[in-house]
Amino acid sequence: MCGTDKEKDKNISSGRPYQFASLDFERRERTGFAEVVFCQGKPDGFLQDIFLRLYNENGEVMGTRASPEQYNAVRNILPDAVYDTVSRIIKVESQSAKTKKNRLAGNIAVCTAGTADLSVAEEAAQTAEFFGSRAVRIYDVGVSGVHRLLAQTDKLRKANCIIAIAGMEGALASVIGGLVSVPVIAVPTSVGYGAAFGGISALLTMINSCANGISVVNIDNGYGAAYIATQINRLALKGNTQP
Amino acid sequence: MCGTDKEKDKNISSGRPYQFASLDFERRERTGFAEVVFCQGKPDGFLQDIFLRLYNENGEVMGTRASPEQYNAVRNILPDAVYDTVSRIIKVESQSAKTKKNRLAGNIAVCTAGTADLSVAEEAAQTAEFFGSRAVRIYDVGVSGVHRLLAQTDKLRKANCIIAIAGMEGALASVIGGLVSVPVIAVPTSVGYGAAFGGISALLTMINSCANGISVVNIDNGYGAAYIATQINRLALKGNTQP
Amino acid sequence: MCGTDKEKDKNISSGRPYQFASLDFERRERTGFAEVVFCQGKPDGFLQDIFLRLYNENGEVMGTRASPEQYNAVRNILPDAVYDTVSRIIKVESQSAKTKKNRLAGNIAVCTAGTADLSVAEEAAQTAEFFGSRAVRIYDVGVSGVHRLLAQTDKLRKANCIIAIAGMEGALASVIGGLVSVPVIAVPTSVGYGAAFGGISALLTMINSCANGISVVNIDNGYGAAYIATQINRLALKGNTQP
Amino acid sequence: MCGTDKEKDKNISSGRPYQFASLDFERRERTGFAEVVFCQGKPDGFLQDIFLRLYNENGEVMGTRASPEQYNAVRNILPDAVYDTVSRIIKVESQSAKTKKNRLAGNIAVCTAGTADLSVAEEAAQTAEFFGSRAVRIYDVGVSGVHRLLAQTDKLRKANCIIAIAGMEGALASVIGGLVSVPVIAVPTSVGYGAAFGGISALLTMINSCANGISVVNIDNGYGAAYIATQINRLALKGNTQP
Amino acid sequence: MCGTDKEKDKNISSGRPYQFASLDFERRERTGFAEVVFCQGKPDGFLQDIFLRLYNENGEVMGTRASPEQYNAVRNILPDAVYDTVSRIIKVESQSAKTKKNRLAGNIAVCTAGTADLSVAEEAAQTAEFFGSRAVRIYDVGVSGVHRLLAQTDKLRKANCIIAIAGMEGALASVIGGLVSVPVIAVPTSVGYGAAFGGISALLTMINSCANGISVVNIDNGYGAAYIATQINRLALKGNTQP
Amino acid sequence: MCGTDKEKDKNISSGRPYQFASLDFERRERTGFAEVVFCQGKPDGFLQDIFLRLYNENGEVMGTRASPEQYNAVRNILPDAVYDTVSRIIKVESQSAKTKKNRLAGNIAVCTAGTADLSVAEEAAQTAEFFGSRAVRIYDVGVSGVHRLLAQTDKLRKANCIIAIAGMEGALASVIGGLVSVPVIAVPTSVGYGAAFGGISALLTMINSCANGISVVNIDNGYGAAYIATQINRLALKGNTQP
Amino acid sequence: MCGTDKEKDKNISSGRPYQFASLDFERRERTGFAEVVFCQGKPDGFLQDIFLRLYNENGEVMGTRASPEQYNAVRNILPDAVYDTVSRIIKVESQSAKTKKNRLAGNIAVCTAGTADLSVAEEAAQTAEFFGSRAVRIYDVGVSGVHRLLAQTDKLRKANCIIAIAGMEGALASVIGGLVSVPVIAVPTSVGYGAAFGGISALLTMINSCANGISVVNIDNGYGAAYIATQINRLALKGNTQP
Amino acid sequence: MCGTDKEKDKNISSGRPYQFASLDFERRERTGFAEVVFCQGKPDGFLQDIFLRLYNENGEVMGTRASPEQYNAVRNILPDAVYDTVSRIIKVESQSAKTKKNRLAGNIAVCTAGTADLSVAEEAAQTAEFFGSRAVRIYDVGVSGVHRLLAQTDKLRKANCIIAIAGMEGALASVIGGLVSVPVIAVPTSVGYGAAFGGISALLTMINSCANGISVVNIDNGYGAAYIATQINRLALKGNTQP
Repeated sequence: MCGTDKEKDKNISSGRPYQFASLDFERRERTGFAEVVFCQGKPDGFLQDIFLRLYNENGEVMGTRASPEQYNAVRNILPDAVYDTVSRIIKVESQSAKTKKNRLAGNIAVCTAGTADLSVAEEAAQTAEFFGSRAVRIYDVGVSGVHRLLAQTDKLRKANCIIAIAGMEGALASVIGGLVSVPVIAVPTSVGYGAAFGGISALLTMINSCANGISVVNIDNGYGAAYIATQINRLALKGNTQP
Repeated sequence: MCGTDKEKDKNISSGRPYQFASLDFERRERTGFAEVVFCQGKPDGFLQDIFLRLYNENGEVMGTRASPEQYNAVRNILPDAVYDTVSRIIKVESQSAKTKKNRLAGNIAVCTAGTADLSVAEEAAQTAEFFGSRAVRIYDVGVSGVHRLLAQTDKLRKANCIIAIAGMEGALASVIGGLVSVPVIAVPTSVGYGAAFGGISALLTMINSCANGISVVNIDNGYGAAYIATQINRLALKGNTQP
Repeated sequence: MCGTDKEKDKNISSGRPYQFASLDFERRERTGFAEVVFCQGKPDGFLQDIFLRLYNENGEVMGTRASPEQYNAVRNILPDAVYDTVSRIIKVESQSAKTKKNRLAGNIAVCTAGTADLSVAEEAAQTAEFFGSRAVRIYDVGVSGVHRLLAQTDKLRKANCIIAIAGMEGALASVIGGLVSVPVIAVPTSVGYGAAFGGISALLTMINSCANGISVVNIDNGYGAAYIATQINRLALKGNTQP
Repeated sequence: MCGTDKEKDKNISSGRPYQFASLDFERRERTGFAEVVFCQGKPDGFLQDIFLRLYNENGEVMGTRASPEQYNAVRNILPDAVYDTVSRIIKVESQSAKTKKNRLAGNIAVCTAGTADLSVAEEAAQTAEFFGSRAVRIYDVGVSGVHRLLAQTDKLRKANCIIAIAGMEGALASVIGGLVSVPVIAVPTSVGYGAAFGGISALLTMINSCANGISVVNIDNGYGAAYIATQINRLALKGNTQP
Repeated sequence: MCGTDKEKDKNISSGRPYQFASLDFERRERTGFAEVVFCQGKPDGFLQDIFLRLYNENGEVMGTRASPEQYNAVRNILPDAVYDTVSRIIKVESQSAKTKKNRLAGNIAVCTAGTADLSVAEEAAQTAEFFGSRAVRIYDVGVSGVHRLLAQTDKLRKANCIIAIAGMEGALASVIGGLVSVPVIAVPTSVGYGAAFGGISALLTMINSCANGISVVNIDNGYGAAYIATQINRLALKGNTQP
Repeated sequence: MCGTDKEKDKNISSGRPYQFASLDFERRERTGFAEVVFCQGKPDGFLQDIFLRLYNENGEVMGTRASPEQYNAVRNILPDAVYDTVSRIIKVESQSAKTKKNRLAGNIAVCTAGTADLSVAEEAAQTAEFFGSRAVRIYDVGVSGVHRLLAQTDKLRKANCIIAIAGMEGALASVIGGLVSVPVIAVPTSVGYGAAFGGISALLTMINSCANGISVVNIDNGYGAAYIATQINRLALKGNTQP
Repeated sequence: MCGTDKEKDKNISSGRPYQFASLDFERRERTGFAEVVFCQGKPDGFLQDIFLRLYNENGEVMGTRASPEQYNAVRNILPDAVYDTVSRIIKVESQSAKTKKNRLAGNIAVCTAGTADLSVAEEAAQTAEFFGSRAVRIYDVGVSGVHRLLAQTDKLRKANCIIAIAGMEGALASVIGGLVSVPVIAVPTSVGYGAAFGGISALLTMINSCANGISVVNIDNGYGAAYIATQINRLALKGNTQP
Repeated sequence: MCGTDKEKDKNISSGRPYQFASLDFERRERTGFAEVVFCQGKPDGFLQDIFLRLYNENGEVMGTRASPEQYNAVRNILPDAVYDTVSRIIKVESQSAKTKKNRLAGNIAVCTAGTADLSVAEEAAQTAEFFGSRAVRIYDVGVSGVHRLLAQTDKLRKANCIIAIAGMEGALASVIGGLVSVPVIAVPTSVGYGAAFGGISALLTMINSCANGISVVNIDNGYGAAYIATQINRLALKGNTQP
């Protein structure tokens, strides 16, 4: 699939020859977002190939759920790639993007119940920033010490959209939902043990929230929440600019 | 089973003759609580029989989850029986119990997230009172308007045990758990729809609570929570008096 | 609870006397939305009471999931109440609200996969309208005849937010998500049989969507989707106006 | 079980002596298909034994779900064995089979939603080819960019049977089902995370499909889908030739 | 929705005025099958409307999952409609269809494990006949008396496709799969109790079948199985005739 | 299916004419047990037909899970039929069977945790008696008052097989398993509420029992347990007499 | 816990000092079976201790689910211990037991659907032999080639009890149940993938079996099945000999 | 996050700079308990940081679910830290705490069903001791040998609260609940296999317990049970001392 030079054992092949559909380059036009690579489970060769093609097309590229090993593979072909060990994001930003950082627009609040949700939170915050939104981090404000959250009410009320990230019983989103007038994107995390069922319990809590204004994305899907939050942030900044 | 006088169709029987084990009269000695009747699903004749025997034994008797029809059946044989349509409890109290009411002891706080949890809450509160505990009702303090709950903090802190009743996402217990230093008995309710799964979602929330001091009973089990809360209330009042 | 005049059987009570917390009147200030009544399961007396209090407070009131019998009860005390048999919504609109209807603002597209999802769709659309948003109905565009949906692409792209309602396999949201640049609120419905599990299958489909920009609310929760869509629509119209 | 020469520790045995039932050699007569080996979990010695016996009987042999280590074991006794790292198929083809390849008959379309489904897709495609069917690969046509699929409509309509492979939300089968008049065999894959539940979510989507003509096989069962597709392809080519 | 003459209560409406997308008339061209009505849950007025429109378009019309009450509603507007109480199918056949019945083509075997599966079996068999396929009924051949099934082997081997219908443990499909060389469409039924989980247990059995050639449709989906079986039967009779 | 005389509406049919496979009369020879009718869900006409045929064949007949209405239907054609309202069994016993009753053989202990399990227990006990086994009833010996069970140890130890019936948490089987040396057939019942999940919780308890000698049948399957217990009882009485 | 001589780091402990209850030595008297060790998860020191004490008490000892490493640990203290890599059983048999082997009593048939179930089957067969029962192995007779099973009917009918072991769809037990008159102990195995759910699917199949005489033990519990089968085998040989 | 000195690769970061909320130091005032560290999953640097801060604040610190590697990391900065390999607890006790040990107050009974539950039991017992409660260990008293438990009745009746720990079928709590008059905190454990589902089966058993006085915490949550038991023990010793 990704031609390598080493002598091949001709008894061993890797799939029938197949011409992949071209990448979905018009996506940016259609949706306003460039394609982001979901790295987990992708073999190195394939990853290098897709990072290179997207970089060449867009002048920047981002991948989520990357292992340190995958980062090394990407860095071999894109030496400017940077990696964050908490969010597990690989990024090559364009010069303009780097500049842009100083003027990230709007306001997305990223909240977590506990420190164990940090990885998902940083995936969300850094994704939002990659897409040009300003991310305000409000971490470790779980509901078992509700005064910590209430102390942040002013910050919460300045956001155009709030991402509420929680594992275990996931009650954070409900309490936030009662404090603000903007949409809350709830992200259940796989943090917890026993009857936490890898995030299902938190997901159910959030889907059943007694508060209004809450919608839910998949377990640990910080990227997805940031995508939606950016859509909302952009609408708040300049109204609908659908293509 | 409970001899009736009307001419019987001799082709129709109702179980082989069988001498039931005597009721568990020594239970009160062993556990400190008289037997309470779980009415749901019990046929009228059986219900009348068991109410009468327990009343004769103890001078008082209580049943939970009773329908209005079951109340009528019980009242036919025990005219002093009273019925509460919200808690669905049938009760015949002894004279001493009625007097005792003016001096219910201790302090159990019964909290609900919403008005739809009222039936379970009253089952809990009235059961606690039947067992001699004072019940303090704190209703409709769900976490989506968390200031309503916080306004009750003083009341909560006076209790020896708190019963936290909630359906839907069941986050109430976690927030209460962070405010007090006594045990919180969490009761998930079957209130909700869709992914509430008849109370399972609330049960999972409560079992996974990030707050300490929370243990959980079965869905809608207001009676069971009041039983435990009374055990704790008694310990707080006079220490362990195990037989 | 809600004083009735008929002679009472003094053996029958309905809950201990209890002063409910005042309704959450400041909610409108805090969240920008007045309280809406979830009618399902509420007894008539309670329903009349809450409708009257909210109407007196706000000059208008709306309830969802109402049965025809509940409508009759409400109408007895609020003769101007209207009822829609499809959405199961009871409403008393203020005069200004009726006038406002001619100038509903913004654009929310409400899409359904099949005709069986109509009830949830009308709950969503009429709720959005009650909150002042213009709702554009795009019904019966399920993915098994995908050309029907594609034919509506232009309409979809004019919306500030899209509500995608589907039961059975719930694939509608994913296809829409690929066509637009605004958030898609996905509503699984309990339509289907067998392994549809009362909407769980559709919920899972939507939570796992391969498309970006999709978040999910509870099964059949048309009201909740409309609430969020209105939040987004308002942001698109005038930016964040959090209190 | 498969006599080895090295000195045995006589305290260690491996099962009581047992004469296995003869392999199901008449299967080919009964069903029109030779036995294929499911390698996963089988110990090397057993695998070598069964490959050899089937090869001797049929002049060709195929195994699915094989690890590279298992391939090495098989190759030790059958040096002509070839291995494909994507499909994880080990194969020894007869000379006639190799020739036959130039005239694979009929037309089975193998479609995938994403590149992560490739392994299952190649298991399906190469199995179909081993059974003498022509396989047309249509990869990476997931419904979040539905135009990519629609662009392949002509190819889809030339097939006698379509295999639709998808993980995550698995909506691909429904959209294809609406475009063609031949059976669609849907294969859910374990691709995804969180509420994808290792393929269960995709399986439910497919079982509940609103499109007609769709039936489902087990998660990741590319082999099984290809078996059925070949049965259908053969019927289309020459009608029922049941023994 | 479907104008009725009786005086309307103007406080009661039924959905906002909405022009439904035209029925999918080109479906027959695209898929080779006319639209069939899934009656369950559809209100009478809507049902009459859709039956009439499809009848006018096609000269014949069929509906599944119809109650006796729904039949009466349909018969009021289409007096030639007939109803089968076992399959719960309403049908108006064209004259040519009635004649055609004498020359139903091909061969689909419809097998059931027990008599309780009869309703699903007749839905399948009569649907297949409506679509022009000959259906051979092989009922009550469950695997707990496997000789009854084996006695039908010859009949099974004459079919182009087999529909295997079973509730409880659903093992029928596996045994049939080992006896024939054509596809087996497995239909789990909701027959059973306790851990049968309304058909889920049978569905899992069938999805995990150790036999080849088996694919599965939704619980109780006799119609869907007959649709696929007819697709296969047609391919066997005349090859792929995709539009 | 079972010719009735009343004028038929010729637009309404009930399934295509179909000759059912003959009843499995050789079953008694093969398994040592005559066929017993599972009445639930069977229409009256069908029930009458099958009762009559089995009665004519065997001189006796039994049916389980029968409603009072079904009993009336059966009694119309078999006036000697008797009905037990607790076990819901309809029976016509042969003269010899009635005589035999005085000499029921062996010893099967039927134990229940609570009175709510009585219906399942009587189905088990009366089935065992119908098959010629002596049934010893030990009811209401749930583990929350374990002394009641221990008081029956002597009785338990005289049995050849024990049927342990329990709902809710189903712990009865484990405690019994530790007291005896014969097999315990555990029957979970659907008694309970909330997280009892209609018997699933009890089923899981029993399947996971830490005691040896316990195997499990389906929820509420008193009949099935009695069948197995009779097989074991017969073996204990006279050894294996397989045909 | 089991005193070791090496210098201890006094900052590291292993549990508070605690005198374990004496092993259940009277078990053999009470139940007729000596205690067998479930090795999985037990640390080496504990395992050595328990093996030694049971060996000293009974002159023989057996352990199931043992790893090769655990075998080495046991062998260090009991050099006569033998290990079978398929069943994963460690055993030290008394001289009399070894002699006894030539006169194993009765007849238990151990059947498997596939070769992948072999490990569970040998655990069952060797356990039965350890307890003194003759085990007749009938392997690889899955229902997808039902003639292989039918060819063994005579062997099956000679058994006093049958153990039916199957993973995937687990239909084996139902077919066997219809062929014999003795109890069938069904053992679901964790063999399979995807929707096999680690044995749950097979467990459900077996619990819902349409055949009579089938009861079920936990997934992969070959030991438990052999225990029950031996209880039945002993009853068949000499009648009930409960202590 | 926790400044390290080694040369950093400046392409690799670890989260955006973020000032964590201060630890919840007032917790001890609010709840009467100092914060305890849940070590599992926390990186070494973070763990060192939090241990140090809590130790400095409180003069003592405890962590649960710690690996030996984590202990080494903690010991590097707190050389007095001790580790118990069974409970997996790391502790630094103040001198006063060590002295206090000789006068641990009250009485909490910690019971387990089997030896495999020991790790959870020691987590509970040692936590209770850390919080100043006397813990009485009653291990290996599972219900399959119920006499072992009954022999401990006197000990059980002296406790102010009982912690009942059990995996597999979890029946221990029900039997204990029937013997005492104080609350039983039930802890399901992940011990078991197959349908034990990692503790879910035991959790369900306990939630559905037919005994009164039982409430449940999360699977393996020995710490949480000890926390509640200490709350109750304190109430029994000196009554409610809520802040």
